[in-house]
Amino acid sequence: MPEFDLMRRLHRAGRQKVILLILDGLGGLPIEPDGPTELETARTPNMDRLAAEGILGQIVPVRLGITPGSGPAHLALFGYDPLTFDVGRGVLEATGVGMHVAAGDVAARGNFCTLDSEGKIVDRRAGRIPSQEALPLVERLAGISIPDVEIEVRHVREYRFAVVLRGQGLDPSLADTDPQQTGRAPLPVEPTAPEATRTAQIFNTWVEQARSLLSDQPKANGLTLRGFSTNPSLPQFDEIYGLKAAAVAVYPMYRGVAKLVGMEIHHFEGESPQDEFAAVASAWNEYDFFFIHIKKTDSKGEDGDFHGKAAIIESVDGALPQLLDLGPAALAITGDHSTPARMKTHSWHPVPLLLWAPQTVRPDNQRSFGERACATGGLGTLPATDLLPLLLAHAGRLNKYGA
Amino acid sequence: MPEFDLMRRLHRAGRQKVILLILDGLGGLPIEPDGPTELETARTPNMDRLAAEGILGQIVPVRLGITPGSGPAHLALFGYDPLTFDVGRGVLEATGVGMHVAAGDVAARGNFCTLDSEGKIVDRRAGRIPSQEALPLVERLAGISIPDVEIEVRHVREYRFAVVLRGQGLDPSLADTDPQQTGRAPLPVEPTAPEATRTAQIFNTWVEQARSLLSDQPKANGLTLRGFSTNPSLPQFDEIYGLKAAAVAVYPMYRGVAKLVGMEIHHFEGESPQDEFAAVASAWNEYDFFFIHIKKTDSKGEDGDFHGKAAIIESVDGALPQLLDLGPAALAITGDHSTPARMKTHSWHPVPLLLWAPQTVRPDNQRSFGERACATGGLGTLPATDLLPLLLAHAGRLNKYGA
Repeated sequence: MPEFDLMRRLHRAGRQKVILLILDGLGGLPIEPDGPTELETARTPNMDRLAAEGILGQIVPVRLGITPGSGPAHLALFGYDPLTFDVGRGVLEATGVGMHVAAGDVAARGNFCTLDSEGKIVDRRAGRIPSQEALPLVERLAGISIPDVEIEVRHVREYRFAVVLRGQGLDPSLADTDPQQTGRAPLPVEPTAPEATRTAQIFNTWVEQARSLLSDQPKANGLTLRGFSTNPSLPQFDEIYGLKAAAVAVYPMYRGVAKLVGMEIHHFEGESPQDEFAAVASAWNEYDFFFIHIKKTDSKGEDGDFHGKAAIIESVDGALPQLLDLGPAALAITGDHSTPARMKTHSWHPVPLLLWAPQTVRPDNQRSFGERACATGGLGTLPATDLLPLLLAHAGRLNKYGA
Repeated sequence: MPEFDLMRRLHRAGRQKVILLILDGLGGLPIEPDGPTELETARTPNMDRLAAEGILGQIVPVRLGITPGSGPAHLALFGYDPLTFDVGRGVLEATGVGMHVAAGDVAARGNFCTLDSEGKIVDRRAGRIPSQEALPLVERLAGISIPDVEIEVRHVREYRFAVVLRGQGLDPSLADTDPQQTGRAPLPVEPTAPEATRTAQIFNTWVEQARSLLSDQPKANGLTLRGFSTNPSLPQFDEIYGLKAAAVAVYPMYRGVAKLVGMEIHHFEGESPQDEFAAVASAWNEYDFFFIHIKKTDSKGEDGDFHGKAAIIESVDGALPQLLDLGPAALAITGDHSTPARMKTHSWHPVPLLLWAPQTVRPDNQRSFGERACATGGLGTLPATDLLPLLLAHAGRLNKYGA
């Protein structure tokens, strides 16, 4: 992308730090037309102060009207147009749990499921078995071996795992085996391009052996595979922006997308916003850029829990002084996409954006952080891919273009 | 660019006049988050009336977050995407002082500097010697001759001059010789591509002779060269927009960029806004389009002089009735980029835009011309390259697209 060339050419070394704080699925909807959204409901005195001192706007993750998955939405936040850079879900998940996926390897997400006596799915998530039940089953699967290839399996969370297939001449052009409904058997692995025929055969052999190893299980006696993909060899974040970047995220997928763009995963104990911000503090001197990912705003949105989502936002707001005390030169608070509790799912609505930089931001007239304030904020409505250049500029980490 | 093809296809002849009034570095920042900017501080009754009757918005010169130099910023105002059209500073400066730079010639900016006995720079601007001291030195340099090439030297202002090298097989791929700091000697002219090796040798020979001619000088006993470049053969303004265009500017560089896109330079006496507007009046019947450039807003911004910048804006506002009396069909008042006094330098912040057209503009709710009003103006935030089509449309100089 020519924008990357511009960043490569203009980025400037410095000690100023940049924070990108992502509240997953932040954007919401009011219950009643004239009522507040989740973000507008939440009491957020810290964010409101930053909104008054800083500038608001709203970002469009992919294109207007397009509801993004988490992978494309995060790529966009990092400046990678998701219509140009296609990253599969399998490689995101596998990378997120620390597996190495080289270009040419094929990664997939796996779900345990419950099959009836005819082999039809009765529960697509195997009763959401807890991690301690799933772990030994993943270990069984790890014992499968197939000639000429290497297969690595790793547990992700509850009923979910990741598989990486390594060998010569593999191709990820394969269709998901999850039929997306109960009452149907898992589909065989089918190639969507002739080059992937052999890869499909290998995966089908593996699935057959796995089924046999799981046949004694009451809940997790079957599995489905999704998101077959390889490492897309993305241009790397530090090379583009000149920033050494750390990702502070609890969930594997977000670590995965951060790692694929070249960020380092900063490991830490705990799951709360306080824990995540403390992790940032502990690594403050080692990095230029911190991507912090808060998952539960999205989870509450998907649950349809309007007030639960507002409460998560309040908990982030309460912990915010920890982050501000570190003295970032520029801070953005936004989401990867909207997940209105009212819709219980991701949506296409633009995402509220708060940009704060004590030395350089041009304030607008807004006084609080919320969807309506952001829609008339001074930054206007912008593509998510423009956020990183704005952050770098506000942190004094970009040189002038032309004389 | 496809946008140019659209303009070529749709532009319409007419007698309606268009004015583009540029206050260089217009955009600013408040000193305190809730305080006014320079433009918001300035008392501007005329602009405020136009703001009430017209529509506001803000323009992004190059891309969000990108701080432009004056060359790219002006190209963008004229509709030329500066990432597509690259114009060197040397050709801008040389063209601005009326030198002819053909495609294949190599132009450069020159600075006199002060060297110590070891040849190291002690003052990069030769004590900012006044023009009357520099002029005879430029005449000395003009006497240098080198076989097979023609070298023209012309004084620009104070310690600055321009050089144009003409001949066969020249190439402008040369690095600046200004080391950008004192205590170091000027660098030799180095080629950045093998094709420019001979051109570098010629310039080095010229510099050597120049040094010898300047050796008796107390202040201007050395020189540096920057911005080596040739004529980029830009598509021409009248051919794209169907407008005969005049540039009214005091400073050479802005005349240079106007001339490179094919505008005619309208010469006049004086430097004040009144002088510039009187120049427009004197040429009113000869042109369709007037680019007026006010430099001092930027100069005051670079000096960090917040109130001085506001005073310049007030002086432009005071003279504005002169311009309005001419009866333009469409008028835009904006800047090429922001130069907040608080930052003392160009910045990436969007630039306030006021668009006024008595017959055709759709007013918004804004009542005064300022950054906050513009950020929520009816035009929204738009690329600078969209301004010319908007001006032509409001002046009735564009046909309908499609039936």
